[in-house]
Amino acid sequence: MNNKLVNVAVVGATGAVGEQMLEILEERSFPVNTLKLLSSKRSAGKTLTFKGEEYVVEEATEDSFEGIDIALFSAGGSVSKRFADAAVKSGAVVIDNTSAFRMDENVPLVVPEVNVDDVSKHNGIISNPNCSTIQMVAALEPLREAFGLNRVIVSTYQAVSGAGVEAVDEMNEQSKDVLEGRDFEAKVLPVSSDEKYYQIAFNAVPQIDKFEDNGYTFEELKMINETKKILHDDQLPVAATCVRLPVATGHSESVYIEVDKDGVTVNELREQLEKAPGITVTDDPSNQVYPMATDAAGQDDIFVGRMRKDLDNEKGFHLWVVADNLRKGAALNSIQIAESLLKKELI
Amino acid sequence: MNNKLVNVAVVGATGAVGEQMLEILEERSFPVNTLKLLSSKRSAGKTLTFKGEEYVVEEATEDSFEGIDIALFSAGGSVSKRFADAAVKSGAVVIDNTSAFRMDENVPLVVPEVNVDDVSKHNGIISNPNCSTIQMVAALEPLREAFGLNRVIVSTYQAVSGAGVEAVDEMNEQSKDVLEGRDFEAKVLPVSSDEKYYQIAFNAVPQIDKFEDNGYTFEELKMINETKKILHDDQLPVAATCVRLPVATGHSESVYIEVDKDGVTVNELREQLEKAPGITVTDDPSNQVYPMATDAAGQDDIFVGRMRKDLDNEKGFHLWVVADNLRKGAALNSIQIAESLLKKELI
Repeated sequence: MNNKLVNVAVVGATGAVGEQMLEILEERSFPVNTLKLLSSKRSAGKTLTFKGEEYVVEEATEDSFEGIDIALFSAGGSVSKRFADAAVKSGAVVIDNTSAFRMDENVPLVVPEVNVDDVSKHNGIISNPNCSTIQMVAALEPLREAFGLNRVIVSTYQAVSGAGVEAVDEMNEQSKDVLEGRDFEAKVLPVSSDEKYYQIAFNAVPQIDKFEDNGYTFEELKMINETKKILHDDQLPVAATCVRLPVATGHSESVYIEVDKDGVTVNELREQLEKAPGITVTDDPSNQVYPMATDAAGQDDIFVGRMRKDLDNEKGFHLWVVADNLRKGAALNSIQIAESLLKKELI
Repeated sequence: MNNKLVNVAVVGATGAVGEQMLEILEERSFPVNTLKLLSSKRSAGKTLTFKGEEYVVEEATEDSFEGIDIALFSAGGSVSKRFADAAVKSGAVVIDNTSAFRMDENVPLVVPEVNVDDVSKHNGIISNPNCSTIQMVAALEPLREAFGLNRVIVSTYQAVSGAGVEAVDEMNEQSKDVLEGRDFEAKVLPVSSDEKYYQIAFNAVPQIDKFEDNGYTFEELKMINETKKILHDDQLPVAATCVRLPVATGHSESVYIEVDKDGVTVNELREQLEKAPGITVTDDPSNQVYPMATDAAGQDDIFVGRMRKDLDNEKGFHLWVVADNLRKGAALNSIQIAESLLKKELI
């Protein structure tokens, strides 16, 4: 890594992911020169701490990005669409954790363990993939590389923190209401900008993000399309069913894959994953060892277990993939992208 | 149905499923002549109400079944193994809601909407399938009949009541502990008879029942093998990943199928399911209408939604199947089997 000190802006600093970004910049000793915390007008004026110093959050405007090298955006797609161009014009590289530019062919979509070289192709903006996509492709890439990949079918078990701090608060308050027999009104989940709200406490809700005309949710299409883009394989069949659970942090995924190579064993899968960066294999069924959201929360790695061969398809395998959706699924991956820019001397 | 009045015994009357059985016998005006409530020694002496009358629960012994026509067992596999023969020798037909005899080739495994004619082949015992199997095969059979079925891959989202009243209590107490920041010790879930216990509150645990040597849980193998048996298709490829959630009642399932016929549309799937017995189609994504555990709890039907065509496989479809695991998944299905015996004049 070069010795450059970096002027960093965090847009959406007061959100669930923004807070994680500050923590992770500090944990990983990212070479921050100046730090600018930006937010909507509503949150401006709040104070946040970074390396023991207090920072006042400012309202983001088009003029906020002067002198900024890296702008980490995580304040929703409309904020990214509104300010990313201004940030790029000011000379910053935007690392955007919203869906605003992910499928734009001029914007690299990067999971550093999978396609770090794509960062070099940026035109000012690099997109951070969707949380549920990141953990899956990071687990699949070592297998794709070793054995080829012909099919992916995933069903997700996603935490409410992916829908923001308000969603976590709603889950907690609603859980208390249910346990104590009080009436309540759902107001945030499944999708705060949609028409109807449903109970998340002690429930499983098969809707994350809004529905498209083809009956898929946008979250499902994100997983499908982003996976193909990151793995550079437009023809890879990928199917997804995305479900929200009453879990605070930690997405779990039941993933079925078909590899291309004949005669692959579960042990060979395990070997590939054990040596893969950012992956911890947690898989010892005889001792009831498998990944769980409660263990993954707060961790950087992606945990893979329940690895087993399909009983009918000789090339089919099942995996259970769990990661902290705010860390590897969002803040950590964004900062790893920033680190790769530094390492490649692209800023 | 004939006009016979039936002498009924319920073994495991004080359990979660036993209580549902009494409710459903009453709701459906099952022609009960005498009712005998049986349990372990521990629960004997308790009082339960049926049609406004109180019944004292007796300890089950080999002599408990004299004069009984139908014995509904739901007290665990070991109890069924211990007393089913005695019940059959006394002249009763045993309808067993445990895994004890399900894969025995002399024992029919019956979901009345799917394979009711199999009840005629009984030799004293009829098995009630596993809860997660019942709701899936009932949704699949109308599609198999119309379009053929070549592949099933299911990931489950299962409620804790499937593990008994103690599991529901543990989930509720643990949820309070987590919400109020208290320490707690898991003692029941994921599997009370296994070695290790894990947090279920605000978590997703990929273990239901114990692990077999091949890395699958027994619950997963139940879904796989029972589905083949009920659908009379040993060659049908079926894969399952079974996951326990912090939901009290209502199992949800993300089901991927491949049909045999070319050119099938989602509308044709819908038509088949809309006219199928015991199924309610709950599927209008543009209005955020889909099945959820909280809506299915307390209902008899199996709810199917999120129906959509796979984006890569022309014969592939995705479904979200939800049902009350204690009712259709256990008590109701057992009593429907009893009703079919009456209707066919087999008792």
